[in-house]
Amino acid sequence: MRTTTGWQSSDRSTALRRVPIERRELRDDDLAVRVDYCGVCRSDLHAIHGVTGKPTDGLVPGHEFTGTVTATGPAVTGFAVGDRVAVGTIVDSCGECAMCRIGQENFCYQGVTSSYGGRDRVDGSTTLGGYSREYVVREKFAYHLPEGLDPAAAAPLMCAGITMWEPLRAAGIGPGSRVAVAGLGGLGHLGVKLAVALGAEVTVLSRTPDKAADALSLGAKDLLLTTDETQMKQAFGRFDLILDTIAALHDFSPLLRLLTLEGTLSVLGAPLETSVRIMELTFGRKNLTSSGTGGTKYTAELLSFCAEKGITADVEVLPSAQVEEALTRLEKGDVRYRFVLDMSDLD
Amino acid sequence: MRTTTGWQSSDRSTALRRVPIERRELRDDDLAVRVDYCGVCRSDLHAIHGVTGKPTDGLVPGHEFTGTVTATGPAVTGFAVGDRVAVGTIVDSCGECAMCRIGQENFCYQGVTSSYGGRDRVDGSTTLGGYSREYVVREKFAYHLPEGLDPAAAAPLMCAGITMWEPLRAAGIGPGSRVAVAGLGGLGHLGVKLAVALGAEVTVLSRTPDKAADALSLGAKDLLLTTDETQMKQAFGRFDLILDTIAALHDFSPLLRLLTLEGTLSVLGAPLETSVRIMELTFGRKNLTSSGTGGTKYTAELLSFCAEKGITADVEVLPSAQVEEALTRLEKGDVRYRFVLDMSDLD
Repeated sequence: MRTTTGWQSSDRSTALRRVPIERRELRDDDLAVRVDYCGVCRSDLHAIHGVTGKPTDGLVPGHEFTGTVTATGPAVTGFAVGDRVAVGTIVDSCGECAMCRIGQENFCYQGVTSSYGGRDRVDGSTTLGGYSREYVVREKFAYHLPEGLDPAAAAPLMCAGITMWEPLRAAGIGPGSRVAVAGLGGLGHLGVKLAVALGAEVTVLSRTPDKAADALSLGAKDLLLTTDETQMKQAFGRFDLILDTIAALHDFSPLLRLLTLEGTLSVLGAPLETSVRIMELTFGRKNLTSSGTGGTKYTAELLSFCAEKGITADVEVLPSAQVEEALTRLEKGDVRYRFVLDMSDLD
Repeated sequence: MRTTTGWQSSDRSTALRRVPIERRELRDDDLAVRVDYCGVCRSDLHAIHGVTGKPTDGLVPGHEFTGTVTATGPAVTGFAVGDRVAVGTIVDSCGECAMCRIGQENFCYQGVTSSYGGRDRVDGSTTLGGYSREYVVREKFAYHLPEGLDPAAAAPLMCAGITMWEPLRAAGIGPGSRVAVAGLGGLGHLGVKLAVALGAEVTVLSRTPDKAADALSLGAKDLLLTTDETQMKQAFGRFDLILDTIAALHDFSPLLRLLTLEGTLSVLGAPLETSVRIMELTFGRKNLTSSGTGGTKYTAELLSFCAEKGITADVEVLPSAQVEEALTRLEKGDVRYRFVLDMSDLD
């Protein structure tokens, strides 16, 4: 086994401890990656708190990271030592089902192997995430980090970014499209940037006006106050797509009313189960959908697009030793818009 | 006013009484229609029982009927006395909103005027439906009944048929598509016929095998027993579109699992509000949608398509005096697949 250092949670605590962790010896198609930067995702908090079903003891979070290849297995063909790489939420899948065959491994019929808290398909061990200095990953699930993308600011593209990108692409968003983004956080701010770069007219939906300046600076045309009935009525039937990044349970009806004919409300903030008034879908034949992260096809496409358009996340970089501060502030919503841990302090 | 005869419900009773009713004098763009055949829809029962919000006293149901033009207003240009016509669930709309402008009057932002229990936009009176010998309607909401379509069997196209047609067309169903129809009743049997005629491979979803022979004779490839776990597992990820015609509240999750990537579950049996497990939408980016009846664009298209393909409903025609029997048997599900009232006994 290889040994490295990581940040580990036990007893559902956000006071992660610095511990030595083991990585597998490289299999034929594996890369060893020195993790340089790892984003802090809200689902890391959920995993720590035990609401995602992942084992909470010995948990090493982190599923959006960038780094540098330090070693390659003998069958690796696409990467060389020194290459800059990015890794996301998925590190393996069955490879054979209808979804894997079309690069939608995020919907693998056999279930994906998550980057942390997942079960390795070869040895059955529990995967440990990117809050660590080294990761070993199949080359199929590593991506070249394009030239010109800052490795810290690019890390969140691998979860927050792709979670926005797939629904935008699935809805065929482009010039002439009207897109709304509900919730301006780690996901939402990238949703705005990506939709704008695709040529759409973008509106931020928010309960408070305090993010209006940010919305405009990210490229949105306007901010619509969801607490203002007049504004909500004026926006009736306006949007082709709403990217709903709100994490808390909430009523979909007011958002559905903002959609045009056959418009889509894509629920991406991961509320688990909720009630839907079918009539809100009936009038206008509206679609309620959801998705999560992305497969190899769209992830590779996203990185190319971001390189072409110069898009990365707005990040606050902290030394990894400040992971508890990052988690605590994230829990309070005190970040614009994504924490990224600098792992170099683990050397 | 013009006087005719109709079947009226009071006190939420299915024992309708034969009564004289008044029709308005023809406005400039009105047709007077002798109603020959009127279908009996489950929503007529709902209206009688007071669950649709329509006034229950003095209710004259009926919103899928065929007949013959007997008089025309001076501004009518598209119809002449003697023409065969069909009328559906909508007899007026604002005509100005985004939905009306594209022939989706069923989603009129100002609300449609329903064929019965609606509010006339000119004089404010409550509309009385097609369980009557004469109806007066704006020509915009009357359709030429194509040659070759039996007027009794064609009547249900105007509600049950169009309710199936719009979601089939919106989903782009054609050769190579896989469509499932859940529930084989008035809506479902037309859903099967229309999807088959569009070139799709069609499966009927049913809790019991007793409709298997009917499903095949309607053109379906097979019947899938939703109570059989093995069959349900084998059909995982199989369908592009499910037309869900089940009227009772039910769990969408087992149906959502049968959809392929970006497949659509269209809820058409009008359960009002229900709980949805968002995760069932997430894996496969599946769509939950709904719609109801249709606008002028798709209704005209449907009638042309049915004429070309020779499609009508499977009906049991009863003299209108047996309306109570029709309603009672419909309530028990004892009809294959639609009752149609012959109005000639009202002369």
